[in-house]
Amino acid sequence: MDCKIMSELLTYVRTKRPLVHHITNYVTVNDCANITISAGAAPVMADAPEEVCEMVTFAGALVLNIGTLNKEQVESMLLAGGTANDRHIPVILDPVGAGATCFRTESAQRLLDELKITILKGNAGEIGTLAGAEARVRGVDSHGVNGDLLKITKHFANQAGMTVVVSGATDIVTDGNRLILVENGHPMMGRISGTGCMAASVTGAFVSVTDDPVLASAAALAAFGIAGEKAASGARGPSSFKTALFDEMAALKSDDLASGARIRVK
Amino acid sequence: MDCKIMSELLTYVRTKRPLVHHITNYVTVNDCANITISAGAAPVMADAPEEVCEMVTFAGALVLNIGTLNKEQVESMLLAGGTANDRHIPVILDPVGAGATCFRTESAQRLLDELKITILKGNAGEIGTLAGAEARVRGVDSHGVNGDLLKITKHFANQAGMTVVVSGATDIVTDGNRLILVENGHPMMGRISGTGCMAASVTGAFVSVTDDPVLASAAALAAFGIAGEKAASGARGPSSFKTALFDEMAALKSDDLASGARIRVK
Amino acid sequence: MDCKIMSELLTYVRTKRPLVHHITNYVTVNDCANITISAGAAPVMADAPEEVCEMVTFAGALVLNIGTLNKEQVESMLLAGGTANDRHIPVILDPVGAGATCFRTESAQRLLDELKITILKGNAGEIGTLAGAEARVRGVDSHGVNGDLLKITKHFANQAGMTVVVSGATDIVTDGNRLILVENGHPMMGRISGTGCMAASVTGAFVSVTDDPVLASAAALAAFGIAGEKAASGARGPSSFKTALFDEMAALKSDDLASGARIRVK
Repeated sequence: MDCKIMSELLTYVRTKRPLVHHITNYVTVNDCANITISAGAAPVMADAPEEVCEMVTFAGALVLNIGTLNKEQVESMLLAGGTANDRHIPVILDPVGAGATCFRTESAQRLLDELKITILKGNAGEIGTLAGAEARVRGVDSHGVNGDLLKITKHFANQAGMTVVVSGATDIVTDGNRLILVENGHPMMGRISGTGCMAASVTGAFVSVTDDPVLASAAALAAFGIAGEKAASGARGPSSFKTALFDEMAALKSDDLASGARIRVK
Repeated sequence: MDCKIMSELLTYVRTKRPLVHHITNYVTVNDCANITISAGAAPVMADAPEEVCEMVTFAGALVLNIGTLNKEQVESMLLAGGTANDRHIPVILDPVGAGATCFRTESAQRLLDELKITILKGNAGEIGTLAGAEARVRGVDSHGVNGDLLKITKHFANQAGMTVVVSGATDIVTDGNRLILVENGHPMMGRISGTGCMAASVTGAFVSVTDDPVLASAAALAAFGIAGEKAASGARGPSSFKTALFDEMAALKSDDLASGARIRVK
Repeated sequence: MDCKIMSELLTYVRTKRPLVHHITNYVTVNDCANITISAGAAPVMADAPEEVCEMVTFAGALVLNIGTLNKEQVESMLLAGGTANDRHIPVILDPVGAGATCFRTESAQRLLDELKITILKGNAGEIGTLAGAEARVRGVDSHGVNGDLLKITKHFANQAGMTVVVSGATDIVTDGNRLILVENGHPMMGRISGTGCMAASVTGAFVSVTDDPVLASAAALAAFGIAGEKAASGARGPSSFKTALFDEMAALKSDDLASGARIRVK
């Protein structure tokens, strides 16, 4: 993979400053807003059914996150997602906690069935659940999948015709044909709430400036991961790490991304 | 303008510790709570229709912010605002994203029509939209107004009989007669989510201790802006800036406000 | 009280990493998630009636916090609490603002009536209100109680058959028989929003690993208080204090808890 092309996406994000419309949970929403700004894009959060279709028309991408879902919010996701689909605005779905409760699994499934999702991003348990594998999810944490995760993910992406991202120590990005592994990141990212949600926001920023969701996802995860690596070096604990994570994301240069990305194309 | 009188408001806030009742968005609500405390006041967030009228009776000011509005929340704003009006408790309206969607524009308009708003605070696009000027709003960001912003704002304030605040590199504060420009602040304040919302919270704290909403608004914006200037000096990025912003707001003295305020009376 | 036994609870939390299910307010929810992780447990926030009963079955404890309550959320609390009771999963209730509005007082009362609450944790005004004493609550802040707080609390705990925790400069923990005073903590903890909510989250983590809610509460408050004391030493203001608070909680060792706890058994 050409890291030069990938790293240029960061420049495009900062030049175009795309609007990233989020319908997301109330736990990490502030982090999502701030990481979107740090990545160079502009966040907007809006979930009222009266306005989501109008709001999304201005967006470069729509990020759907079911972290604290409720019935009304899922309806708004379907409305906004429908408009996004009509206008070829990419839609990222983060199926937080799919597999933990029926309501989460079924809501994520419904979003996958009724919308054309561009990028589905979750942990191994969530993706495994939606791919029909035997997966273990407790709360919003993955406790693993039975079987070959790479194979399951690639097959699922191929069948569903979307890009699937599995976050982990090594992130998997695949559209069923291409498969990229991203090895950036730091264990500290698992010691705070919200890094998964933030990764989806950064992905939304990147996919706003390219037609290639695989490239966008890999670039976003590498960029966010490099910011995490830099942030970890001076951190005294999870919260000072978090402060540094935003600072490093904002300070990240295309060159840092080109030189720091640890990516393997399989 | 006598900066001495203005700076004394900060002392009054810290002595009286007024309650500032917020009905606000779920993105920046934690920032609003903490900046209210740093300013010297006490925040309370409550939006259930069953309690907002009772809660607001204890408040020195009511802050309404439509950043993530929904139908029920607007009803609660009308209820709380009505009680605040009856009891002469000042009401600050932050019409976040007015102009971006019809739902936001119409909801802000409805709040202006049905309530007596003491201070309307927004960016140029939001205020321009509500003043009936040609304005451009994308998401929650202003992309400017056609025409003379000072003139539009002053005319609007005069007609509506309220204080209007337009935030920007130079903030405008006017009740249609008096017009004050506040030049404090730092570009870093635009690199994080929530500074607009926080400015409204600080304004709520200041207007709780004076009958002069023009003075209160100018003092609040100057105080918050000076805190921003101080915070920017040592920041390594947007998130360490944000940490310092709260710290500097909490450490701000009346003397800092008197000497640091950059205010022009037109 | 044997500080050794108490301090071992911290080790158990970090070994077992219990899930702490929160139904809580949207102001401090992110802080609750992060302090739960820093304590060594795993947070999950879920409040939809469709899923709360299923989600809570995986939890070591359920934390109910009415900081921004609404009618639907109270119903979800009753549903989740009912399931928790059936399965002997401890339930912590933080009756934020009880006494400030009828809606808060009545909702807290209803939760106490219809559920078996394991630990009720609030400030003096909130607990005094629910105990039937003359108490003063403004917004979410306690302005004191008439009468002997220790006596009122002990009597209330005895009558209600639960552990009652009153937070303050000296925290009170009692089940009506045993009474423990915890003197850890720092005034800076009152200069930020959310420390009360976070204390309940830490209590949820600790009560997940023991059958003794008095011990769990005292250990949690001591641990959180010690983290606050350590955090205050280098802080330049409330926000850098808050960053350090999470860092110190994450860094806290059993030995720190055993040696730093300032506890009196009455």
